[in-house]
Amino acid sequence: MNLTIAEVRLTPILVADPPLLNTQGVHQPYTPRLIVEVVTADGITGVGETYGDTKYLDLARPFAERLKGRRVSDLNGLFTVADEVAVDASEVENAVDVGGLRGVQTADKLRLSVVSGFEVACLDALGKALGLPVHALLGGKVRDAVEYSAYLFYKWAGHPEGVPAEQDDWGAAVDPAGVVEQARRFTERYGFTSFKLKGGVFPPDEEIAAVRALAEAFPGHPLRLDPNGAWSVETSLRVAEELGDVLEYLEDPTLGTSAMAEVAAKTGVPLATNMCVTTFAEIKEAFTKDAVQVVLSDHHYWGGLRNTQQLAAVCRAFGVGVSMHSNTHLGVSLAAMTHVAATVPDLHHACDSHYPWQSEDVLTERLAFEGGRVAVSDAPGLGVELDRERLAVLHRRWLADDGALRDRDDAAAMRIADPRWVTPSVPRW
Amino acid sequence: MNLTIAEVRLTPILVADPPLLNTQGVHQPYTPRLIVEVVTADGITGVGETYGDTKYLDLARPFAERLKGRRVSDLNGLFTVADEVAVDASEVENAVDVGGLRGVQTADKLRLSVVSGFEVACLDALGKALGLPVHALLGGKVRDAVEYSAYLFYKWAGHPEGVPAEQDDWGAAVDPAGVVEQARRFTERYGFTSFKLKGGVFPPDEEIAAVRALAEAFPGHPLRLDPNGAWSVETSLRVAEELGDVLEYLEDPTLGTSAMAEVAAKTGVPLATNMCVTTFAEIKEAFTKDAVQVVLSDHHYWGGLRNTQQLAAVCRAFGVGVSMHSNTHLGVSLAAMTHVAATVPDLHHACDSHYPWQSEDVLTERLAFEGGRVAVSDAPGLGVELDRERLAVLHRRWLADDGALRDRDDAAAMRIADPRWVTPSVPRW
Ligand SMILES: [Mg+2]
Ligand SMILES: [Mg+2]
Repeated sequence: MNLTIAEVRLTPILVADPPLLNTQGVHQPYTPRLIVEVVTADGITGVGETYGDTKYLDLARPFAERLKGRRVSDLNGLFTVADEVAVDASEVENAVDVGGLRGVQTADKLRLSVVSGFEVACLDALGKALGLPVHALLGGKVRDAVEYSAYLFYKWAGHPEGVPAEQDDWGAAVDPAGVVEQARRFTERYGFTSFKLKGGVFPPDEEIAAVRALAEAFPGHPLRLDPNGAWSVETSLRVAEELGDVLEYLEDPTLGTSAMAEVAAKTGVPLATNMCVTTFAEIKEAFTKDAVQVVLSDHHYWGGLRNTQQLAAVCRAFGVGVSMHSNTHLGVSLAAMTHVAATVPDLHHACDSHYPWQSEDVLTERLAFEGGRVAVSDAPGLGVELDRERLAVLHRRWLADDGALRDRDDAAAMRIADPRWVTPSVPRW
Repeated sequence: MNLTIAEVRLTPILVADPPLLNTQGVHQPYTPRLIVEVVTADGITGVGETYGDTKYLDLARPFAERLKGRRVSDLNGLFTVADEVAVDASEVENAVDVGGLRGVQTADKLRLSVVSGFEVACLDALGKALGLPVHALLGGKVRDAVEYSAYLFYKWAGHPEGVPAEQDDWGAAVDPAGVVEQARRFTERYGFTSFKLKGGVFPPDEEIAAVRALAEAFPGHPLRLDPNGAWSVETSLRVAEELGDVLEYLEDPTLGTSAMAEVAAKTGVPLATNMCVTTFAEIKEAFTKDAVQVVLSDHHYWGGLRNTQQLAAVCRAFGVGVSMHSNTHLGVSLAAMTHVAATVPDLHHACDSHYPWQSEDVLTERLAFEGGRVAVSDAPGLGVELDRERLAVLHRRWLADDGALRDRDDAAAMRIADPRWVTPSVPRW
């Protein structure tokens, strides 16, 4: 068995994305992702997926070069490689990264986001070479299926007229009735039993009304609201007060550790985050100040599946809950999320996933939600197979793009519909 | 490949131990250890080692029964098994565990100590089955050799007269000259370049003099002093003041998080611990109070090699250093310690090991220190082989014991030499 990496393939793609609204603007009709493949000397291919924006690609290319000759089992060594790949920190740290939706932007975090794509690809290859599922490489599953929540979005029926886009079949959702209707379709199609609403789009009272409508339509089901830091401390507390009886948690109501800590100190509603605590360096202050009660890990920006397990260990030691965040992603990442989530002992909240919103994928077979859960695969590696034709189609779309969509920019997309749109300053309300 | 556990063997043994002094008393002439073997359906055997005192054995036996039919790759599942094995918590938590030298005693910690023996055995078997070294199962080594420090002890030339014991060739060390002489032999035999003195034996001024003598004999070499919590805050601060210029760190000068935090706040000398932070549950308070600057992990009581990696991750997130503690142990555990230490990225202090004091082992070939380092094995599994004849000899010694040595009790050993000896109340000085 030769575990040496003989070849690394990077395939940037553009995948269709519906017009989902958030506090920064609206999703563009296509969003960039990067598919990573590592091929061992024995010809075994492992696949990973991460962000595909230009600055991630610029880092992934030299990273890929350095991987050749290393072994797919050398996962700790990926961080050594990451340290060797130069990043212009000043450029990164001044850049806008989807308006901060992924939390603070640092050179380290950018590197970790790239590492994650390679780590998952290495784990997939290693698992295939050894005949073991990825979860077994992570110490073994402690559950046979992983629960996900319905990720509800305010959305338009379609992208702005005249913009090339795929048409989705979800219709519009811009008010409580639309949100409830969307939730119903989620439960019918996928069996989800908990619901998260992406907020920060409309004035808080409208979003409170939407959550209230959900609570009435789905009594007793866990509900979450995530305005991506759009609110002041006062507004956050008012929403917590008004929705405290139905919320599982409030997600990133306000920006920054101090503001989150102030909200946390004054409400009994747990606060979750994927913006306040997004790197290991941010943990100490946030945990010391009791600013967050649930950390939503994202294996992409935390640096992979093993780092996600380590984050879970840190959270456990501090009595902080853990669950999983999601940006737009495909089936490769959903498989990876499912494997690692299966190994985390105290995962007490359903994970987030955008996957139902992605009509396109690069797999021969889509992953399925049944009863809101994804079954943990026991096949070697991730248990997924790349559809090379689909991958080629989505890559050609990326090649054909003039650069307009190669970096996700929700504000730019919003300006097409509303030329006067400026990224709202926070707190917006 | 069938990774199912078909058989589990537990072999309690008694191994020779020199008359090493500590604040509780003196090491008994023989100390109990437990050798764990798991055998897969394919006939592959993995070996582990942990504490062998009666209460560990009592827990290991039902644990072993439950392992049969599980897979050696199901490492996370070991904690589920641990949860299922009943422990009489009240009995455990009132029991004396080597006078507290291993930190707080809880039912959970007892379980984790037992898990560690099985986890290492499973990793050894899994590595052998897959053709991978244990470090590769832990994400891969980031160094090719692990540095250890010379673990200096005050000691007598021999155990009390009339007590059955093996004779060691180290001679006595009860004053600064004896300690320096011992250190010289350590450097000559093993090439160690850093030194730890087990203190808490003589009044602080004598131990200060011993460390001063070491500093003169080995200028510039990292030095540590560990009185196992024997001192008051005031004494701790005085020692820190007097030795601050030569100490790498001061280890457990005083007992309890509050007292450690008080010392830490008033000295620039880093504090290390294997008594104040010995479980994940103790981390939050200690780290929040900045009570310790270096945690000395012990994979035995932290619950295995993967938990040790998780502890290292928690420490990293909080800017706390990490290194490794050691109780009396044999080559199986030294191999395990070396594998996991090889995978921890920021291990900035040489690890402790009692191994040079153990003239007996259960391996066909002893592990070697060269230049103070143990080379990381790339052979499948731990890279060690059990010497079944030696194992049988040491097991027969355990069988022949009337129970007097089956539970480590340093105070009882001291009372043989000094019938008036009572376990000192702390702070002793
Ligand atoms: Mg969020
Ligand atoms: Mg100690």
